[in-house]
Amino acid sequence: MKEKHLFYADSTSIAQGVLSEEESRHALKALRVKPGEIIWLTDGNGTFHEARVTETDKRNCWFQTERTLPDTPRWKGRIRIAVAPTKNADRTEWLLEKATEIGVDEFILLKCAHAERKSVNRERLERIAISAMKQSYKASKPVITEMTAFDDFLQMLAPDTQRLIAHCHEADDKDPDSFDLTPAASVFLGDIVEPDADTVVAIGPEGDFSPEEVEKALKNGFRAVSLGESRLRTETAALVAVHTMSLIKRRH
Amino acid sequence: MKEKHLFYADSTSIAQGVLSEEESRHALKALRVKPGEIIWLTDGNGTFHEARVTETDKRNCWFQTERTLPDTPRWKGRIRIAVAPTKNADRTEWLLEKATEIGVDEFILLKCAHAERKSVNRERLERIAISAMKQSYKASKPVITEMTAFDDFLQMLAPDTQRLIAHCHEADDKDPDSFDLTPAASVFLGDIVEPDADTVVAIGPEGDFSPEEVEKALKNGFRAVSLGESRLRTETAALVAVHTMSLIKRRH
Repeated sequence: MKEKHLFYADSTSIAQGVLSEEESRHALKALRVKPGEIIWLTDGNGTFHEARVTETDKRNCWFQTERTLPDTPRWKGRIRIAVAPTKNADRTEWLLEKATEIGVDEFILLKCAHAERKSVNRERLERIAISAMKQSYKASKPVITEMTAFDDFLQMLAPDTQRLIAHCHEADDKDPDSFDLTPAASVFLGDIVEPDADTVVAIGPEGDFSPEEVEKALKNGFRAVSLGESRLRTETAALVAVHTMSLIKRRH
Repeated sequence: MKEKHLFYADSTSIAQGVLSEEESRHALKALRVKPGEIIWLTDGNGTFHEARVTETDKRNCWFQTERTLPDTPRWKGRIRIAVAPTKNADRTEWLLEKATEIGVDEFILLKCAHAERKSVNRERLERIAISAMKQSYKASKPVITEMTAFDDFLQMLAPDTQRLIAHCHEADDKDPDSFDLTPAASVFLGDIVEPDADTVVAIGPEGDFSPEEVEKALKNGFRAVSLGESRLRTETAALVAVHTMSLIKRRH
């Protein structure tokens, strides 16, 4: 039995065409695909394409889609995460890969007052999302919304979006000189995620949200949440938020 | 207000002594600690040490512990994960870092029939665990149990350990030629984790557990579980298992 493999093709060539150089190489060298065989493709827009290989040569694999099949939704509502890119780009890329495997609809990159990195390598992020989508046999690629100013982020959300924010500002009554080990008291994310809603969780950057950003978010319908009792790095917090949402919103 | 920082010292020098070269540098250069000030340390054995800085020079920071404080348990029972090291060592290191941040008691590295990597850099893993423990303000370092043969792993568990195994062998009634998108049917981990138990979850390596390994595990009291509807990489599966357990076992 052959390794199951999901190929990617962009939406302009998914009905019929030729696999990309990299995908053709994998099909021909690793999987030894021959004309007449069936392969599966997706363009990341929610549908699997069952296609027949029509022709191959040393470097190219041509195909023709015969049947399409919608991906089975694994969760209800929409899972969206908003986070500033980390100082170390690897950590954001890792987060995108893992969030895509677990399941996320939109990955919003924020410009924040206390975040050091102001830009990302969009092309690289797209490649990582496509690779993780294929790896986890999904037909939907998360939407990557690039470098959105915090104020624009607050305005871009539909009125019925459930809005949550995780930040580390401590309650005013804590002793600033103590080594206080508990996070700022607030509601636990898992206890208030609405299973069917479009939910967005904004995660504080490495320098945290500024007090002004938190205040603006709260004025725009956001509610502060905790992600549990542990102090987490930015990218860990974002992944924990995605996984917590996926557990509450799961269909099975 | 100074950045809160948790220092590490090994158990032989935690009552009084001198910080390591790296810890001294951070204390003196980044935090500008002066004699008479209070710092917090741990040796990773579950206790915070409140210590007074007794002396400093250009490169060294001496301290004397004045008070100890047990770490507040964040979860019930014990969270243990058993997994073969990934082919790419980065992925195992990443998993250890993230699992330590979220919370894990023991990290068991397995020798499996279908895993390519047979050894790990133990010293490097210890450094990563210590760094993640400090970063997340915990006083307990996970136990790293190194390269345990699968048969020895089955024998080392106490009789009352809840034993769970996640593997990808598909049910016999699936059509091997179909592009089947659902994982092998079994109980979802989150539905059967016992909140107060010592729970261990064994995660299939990149080449999955062999049929013989699965059979032996089931004969030794293991129960097969699914981690959700998505197909996950080994290290993602292990982290998802840790986080799912931490949600079920959390105290607050």
